[in-house]
Amino acid sequence: MTSQYRVNYHLRAHKRDSLIEFIKGMLLTPFVLHSQPAASQAHVAENAQRYAEIFASIEELIEEHRSFTNQGIPTYSRLAKLVPSIGTFFTPLPLQQAFERVNCQDKISARKHVPPSFNDVRRILNMAQAIAIAPQLKLVTFDGDMTLYADGQNFEEDTALTALLISLLRRGINVAIVTAAGYGDDAPRYEHRLSGLLAGFAKAGLTTAEVSRFFVLGGECNFLFRCAILDQGYRLQYVPDAEYSASALRSWTDSQVQQLLDVAEAELRDCVDRMAVSAEILRKPRAVGLVPRAQLTREQLDECALSSQLALLKFQGSPKSQPCDVPIPFCAFNGGNDCWVDIGNKLIGVRILQDMLGSPAAATLHVGDQFLSTGNDLSTRTACCTCWIINPEETQRILTELEAILDSTD
Amino acid sequence: MTSQYRVNYHLRAHKRDSLIEFIKGMLLTPFVLHSQPAASQAHVAENAQRYAEIFASIEELIEEHRSFTNQGIPTYSRLAKLVPSIGTFFTPLPLQQAFERVNCQDKISARKHVPPSFNDVRRILNMAQAIAIAPQLKLVTFDGDMTLYADGQNFEEDTALTALLISLLRRGINVAIVTAAGYGDDAPRYEHRLSGLLAGFAKAGLTTAEVSRFFVLGGECNFLFRCAILDQGYRLQYVPDAEYSASALRSWTDSQVQQLLDVAEAELRDCVDRMAVSAEILRKPRAVGLVPRAQLTREQLDECALSSQLALLKFQGSPKSQPCDVPIPFCAFNGGNDCWVDIGNKLIGVRILQDMLGSPAAATLHVGDQFLSTGNDLSTRTACCTCWIINPEETQRILTELEAILDSTD
Amino acid sequence: MTSQYRVNYHLRAHKRDSLIEFIKGMLLTPFVLHSQPAASQAHVAENAQRYAEIFASIEELIEEHRSFTNQGIPTYSRLAKLVPSIGTFFTPLPLQQAFERVNCQDKISARKHVPPSFNDVRRILNMAQAIAIAPQLKLVTFDGDMTLYADGQNFEEDTALTALLISLLRRGINVAIVTAAGYGDDAPRYEHRLSGLLAGFAKAGLTTAEVSRFFVLGGECNFLFRCAILDQGYRLQYVPDAEYSASALRSWTDSQVQQLLDVAEAELRDCVDRMAVSAEILRKPRAVGLVPRAQLTREQLDECALSSQLALLKFQGSPKSQPCDVPIPFCAFNGGNDCWVDIGNKLIGVRILQDMLGSPAAATLHVGDQFLSTGNDLSTRTACCTCWIINPEETQRILTELEAILDSTD
Amino acid sequence: MTSQYRVNYHLRAHKRDSLIEFIKGMLLTPFVLHSQPAASQAHVAENAQRYAEIFASIEELIEEHRSFTNQGIPTYSRLAKLVPSIGTFFTPLPLQQAFERVNCQDKISARKHVPPSFNDVRRILNMAQAIAIAPQLKLVTFDGDMTLYADGQNFEEDTALTALLISLLRRGINVAIVTAAGYGDDAPRYEHRLSGLLAGFAKAGLTTAEVSRFFVLGGECNFLFRCAILDQGYRLQYVPDAEYSASALRSWTDSQVQQLLDVAEAELRDCVDRMAVSAEILRKPRAVGLVPRAQLTREQLDECALSSQLALLKFQGSPKSQPCDVPIPFCAFNGGNDCWVDIGNKLIGVRILQDMLGSPAAATLHVGDQFLSTGNDLSTRTACCTCWIINPEETQRILTELEAILDSTD
Repeated sequence: MTSQYRVNYHLRAHKRDSLIEFIKGMLLTPFVLHSQPAASQAHVAENAQRYAEIFASIEELIEEHRSFTNQGIPTYSRLAKLVPSIGTFFTPLPLQQAFERVNCQDKISARKHVPPSFNDVRRILNMAQAIAIAPQLKLVTFDGDMTLYADGQNFEEDTALTALLISLLRRGINVAIVTAAGYGDDAPRYEHRLSGLLAGFAKAGLTTAEVSRFFVLGGECNFLFRCAILDQGYRLQYVPDAEYSASALRSWTDSQVQQLLDVAEAELRDCVDRMAVSAEILRKPRAVGLVPRAQLTREQLDECALSSQLALLKFQGSPKSQPCDVPIPFCAFNGGNDCWVDIGNKLIGVRILQDMLGSPAAATLHVGDQFLSTGNDLSTRTACCTCWIINPEETQRILTELEAILDSTD
Repeated sequence: MTSQYRVNYHLRAHKRDSLIEFIKGMLLTPFVLHSQPAASQAHVAENAQRYAEIFASIEELIEEHRSFTNQGIPTYSRLAKLVPSIGTFFTPLPLQQAFERVNCQDKISARKHVPPSFNDVRRILNMAQAIAIAPQLKLVTFDGDMTLYADGQNFEEDTALTALLISLLRRGINVAIVTAAGYGDDAPRYEHRLSGLLAGFAKAGLTTAEVSRFFVLGGECNFLFRCAILDQGYRLQYVPDAEYSASALRSWTDSQVQQLLDVAEAELRDCVDRMAVSAEILRKPRAVGLVPRAQLTREQLDECALSSQLALLKFQGSPKSQPCDVPIPFCAFNGGNDCWVDIGNKLIGVRILQDMLGSPAAATLHVGDQFLSTGNDLSTRTACCTCWIINPEETQRILTELEAILDSTD
Repeated sequence: MTSQYRVNYHLRAHKRDSLIEFIKGMLLTPFVLHSQPAASQAHVAENAQRYAEIFASIEELIEEHRSFTNQGIPTYSRLAKLVPSIGTFFTPLPLQQAFERVNCQDKISARKHVPPSFNDVRRILNMAQAIAIAPQLKLVTFDGDMTLYADGQNFEEDTALTALLISLLRRGINVAIVTAAGYGDDAPRYEHRLSGLLAGFAKAGLTTAEVSRFFVLGGECNFLFRCAILDQGYRLQYVPDAEYSASALRSWTDSQVQQLLDVAEAELRDCVDRMAVSAEILRKPRAVGLVPRAQLTREQLDECALSSQLALLKFQGSPKSQPCDVPIPFCAFNGGNDCWVDIGNKLIGVRILQDMLGSPAAATLHVGDQFLSTGNDLSTRTACCTCWIINPEETQRILTELEAILDSTD
Repeated sequence: MTSQYRVNYHLRAHKRDSLIEFIKGMLLTPFVLHSQPAASQAHVAENAQRYAEIFASIEELIEEHRSFTNQGIPTYSRLAKLVPSIGTFFTPLPLQQAFERVNCQDKISARKHVPPSFNDVRRILNMAQAIAIAPQLKLVTFDGDMTLYADGQNFEEDTALTALLISLLRRGINVAIVTAAGYGDDAPRYEHRLSGLLAGFAKAGLTTAEVSRFFVLGGECNFLFRCAILDQGYRLQYVPDAEYSASALRSWTDSQVQQLLDVAEAELRDCVDRMAVSAEILRKPRAVGLVPRAQLTREQLDECALSSQLALLKFQGSPKSQPCDVPIPFCAFNGGNDCWVDIGNKLIGVRILQDMLGSPAAATLHVGDQFLSTGNDLSTRTACCTCWIINPEETQRILTELEAILDSTD
């Protein structure tokens, strides 16, 4: 799990999701006025009814906003006035139904002392998205660390998650892992991290057609692999850039990339000097990183990420920068124990897959853990539907729900 | 690591340390006005100078507050007006010197984009406390989970921490672990959790006199053990209540305790029913807990903790409650995967040890990780000096500093 | 209109009424979710219904709080948890009915873009209080400046307010003006400021019995006058201290008062020196003031008020202070163009009148404009019911409502 | 004094000036750490020194920002990161010198209990602007209500303000009043409101050349008048549109204006119906207003202003709107007792005068009272230097300072 930073450090205090905060605020009124006598099952049911009414009203606000968005005037909706930073909804969100499903499991309406929380609302939004996208689902993309496996760990064999991903592939749905981890075209290193999953594919006897729907996109959006059954078994095959039309989306030349990485490297070296830290600077084809020999404080790693981010933005605005149609996207992030600057981002990663597979926004679901204003999953919201999970258990939970919905609509 | 809750859920948003926030705010001015040109070592040194001046001013404010406190009118100090919730300082705090030591390691003044943070200030306060208390240090008490070992883990052998604790005992300083874990008078269970440490004592060949300075106080303040060298080796011996004068501090009868635990148990059972969760209710001599069979949401565990806390407060205010001189203290907390109500608290634990060992407030240091307004270490602040750490690595770091200071003052 | 300051200047940012803010927050949910389509009268009525439901719920919370207050455990109510600073309600508050009356006039529910405001809620609380107290009303006390007349102005003749006060006196209700203005026992100066009102009494031909129900209490609580019909007409007569039992409430000796005023005067003189302002220091029997020769900034007058307040508090805590049973209450305030320190406060003023007239809390209504945390009317809330108005027009409006209610219950 | 509203009512709570808040925050550190011992003149001088250092640092930040602005990359400055909403500075701001002048008068550094306030900082910024613009000053524009005279009042004769304006005209500086008041080309009505000032011109015997530098621009930017000496004395003469080049700035046709006013009128009538208020709708050549027969609440007038503003924005975004190059600017505002929608704004007013008189941004000063995010003076900041005053006394004070500066630089 990594975190990324924007230029203005003041923003760190404000990182939050405005829609979720808004919904949470609306739910506080019935909680405050009615929750405490919730001793009997009748009271619990009345609370649920009140919460459900709020969700029904918000569902209407979202539909109204979608209608204004279709007319090209999204800022005229009531929701846009209430939540100025609101984005695009590619599907309706059946929030009332989603609340009822989640409440059935988590008994939100039975609580007398803890009001509906940020996480409750986040899970209800995920559920609503899963219900809405199921009928037309064509592509599911996943973040790696903290979404499919714990930070820095490998995908384990025989997990419930393996079974759920296999089930998606068998239904004809494409599955991709879009990860920051960048090892160039070195398929074995990705295979190692996903060995548990590939073993699961083999054990389940997935067909060539089925495994061909499984992709890995490394370095945010730079290195594409597709699963195949080779002589040596279930493997990942590197897909050369020429074999898919990424040129429009990933329009940078190696020379431009190296120029940017030079700037980032110089800035990281300055941080090393300035803070007198003992660290190695690692250069990769599409990334540069600072790996300290002894643990740095969180603040020191943040300083490295912010410094390199600012240096790159300044450079991109200067005449020294090689001319590009659009500035080359990059991520500068504190990786917990190290700091990395990657060229590219997940939005481009998701778009490459959508283009290749012909999956429109309303048929594509990205599942990730970084949707705060500084997270590297956030950008995907402009291209597809999303589920915001916070650990692999939640990924499993939402996929289990999705499977149940798919089963019931078959 | 556990978290505890106060009655008013609104307070959860505000849990923070006012003094640290105040200092952080003061440091923001030089950071904002001067940090960014910090390219050269001269600039870095100028920043350090500005931060040091702020700390010197705050040091003076604390001295003034200590002087008003000694006159019995602490609320008349400037600091009390600036930080209304400010407490008592049992020693001066050499903040400027502490800043310089911490800055030497963490290079706070070399950062251009990340201002002095909450954690920076917390570590500087810890350092100042260590410097101030060293000359007269007589007793160090430690929280268990997250302070000496990771949550729910055991104390490992051959760690740097073992060496540091041994060094304290050899210097004639008493060391105690004050933990929520409550196993009654069952010494072997505590020995099991601390096996690595006891093995370390043996390996180091500590003398009988040295190990007799090591204590464990379980169930917050209920079960006292002292280390001894027996035939079977280095062991913990239960100290019967009669052998130390805890009566004034721990003045509850078993009948009163059981009445309170009955109330808590009834409330926890109501939570089980209300939220239809599958869980076991465990009753111990001085505690009652709810242990779920499947993972509950954080909100559900919070609901259990808050419900039982409120039920106990209500009961203690009612005529049904058996008369006591003071209300029996208790902790109701969300343990991450379970919820517990413990009779007693760490303040009483620390006081029992202070009485027994004749260690005044200014010679006693409590090291723990729960100092937010809802944490179970916070109460110790009224009885002794404190260091607020957030993981065992920080405990090791501050003990290493303390050792260096003790060495230099020998 | 004056404003007063508490010691901690940080508090100035937070001066607000927690109950009103709480109610305002509750009303935001229906406003946000439903107000905008309010085009038709049906929508307007639906909005009104939703607001009325919120007020009905809060009415219940207040009743529950009153019941806990009667049991001596006010902090156990739900309302106390939601609004920790909540005080005592001497009567129920029929909020739903009050909302309907106010909404009928101000059409709150017809607004699509402006949510129910602080002032809307304040007026609804006033209305509810008027409805609740009417049947047993025995004494109405008024602040002077900004409540009955504009700041520093005199009471004008032939106003609607005169007629409304006359009507109260004729119904047998006692009326008193409790004002900061302190002219000692100099009746003519008070008569001058109230000449319009006294002329109105004469014009209406009020009887001796009727005018004897009209009082003026000057210097917050120090100088009592009662209206009488003398040879020279309708006049105010000074009531010597010995003629009413103020001793318990106003238990200070002249020597103690002068000692306090000496301290305040010294501090004001220090402000004059420190800020090099040209000003006169005026000493009165129960007050001392700083009257500048040229306009000071608001901040300078605030500095004078805060300095003298702090000096007095410090003095009262010191051994130099003459021993008293309770500290002598005082008000230090920025009067807009000057700064005054008065001995006494309005709470004592109201209590003196309640004692003399046998009017309990639930039969006494104080109408004033200073109910923020720093206002000099706020203290009266512990002794009687209150209406918080912001100008003489609002006083007239609430008295008009009160008259209608009294008429309908006759 | 009027106030205007933006679409999102949430914004009302946030209306403030970010730069002033930022400076205020910076000053709090020395205040908090050092103000209280300010007993001696030495302490007062030390405080002044500390405040002056802060202002010097901010002066540097502004210079750096001006330099980045000149390079076309204003967002790269440190100030832009600290105060993201920061605008353009047309001159340097000598803040340290300005602080010293203001402090000399207001003794900010002598205060022990009241920190440097919003108004203190606002006055220091005004002073810095006056110092900086004096050498090249060519045009001063004034808001009317609350800037030159009290709300709705006329300009009185023989005031200090008259003398100050005369002095500006005699120095060859152009003076204009840019007011919302819109009476078409009806010169006598403007003359009536300014009769005191015109009488002052006559009394002082201003020459034809001198009075020809005095302008009135009514209806925000719609009706231009110039002062002249006619047979009947000192008068205002209407300047027909054809005589000055306003076409580029005020490019709307009467047909477009009437279409907008029709929309605003319809919305105001809907407010009248919806809230069942008794009011007249007044239509003027460039404005439409709602004038109630009985006082409305502030919230009701806000509702009218917000409703008409939203209706106009919606209309301008719809295909029904007649095509324009840029949307016609308008102001919808709560006038205290009425609500008006005006076509045009003060930014256009100031630009018309700048064009006509050849006065660049750095030589033009606008003095007004509405610079919060919803005020109608705020827009002028993009075209010229500004002074933010809050009443006519402050206008007099800043003009007095300006005169002293002009005298000293002559």
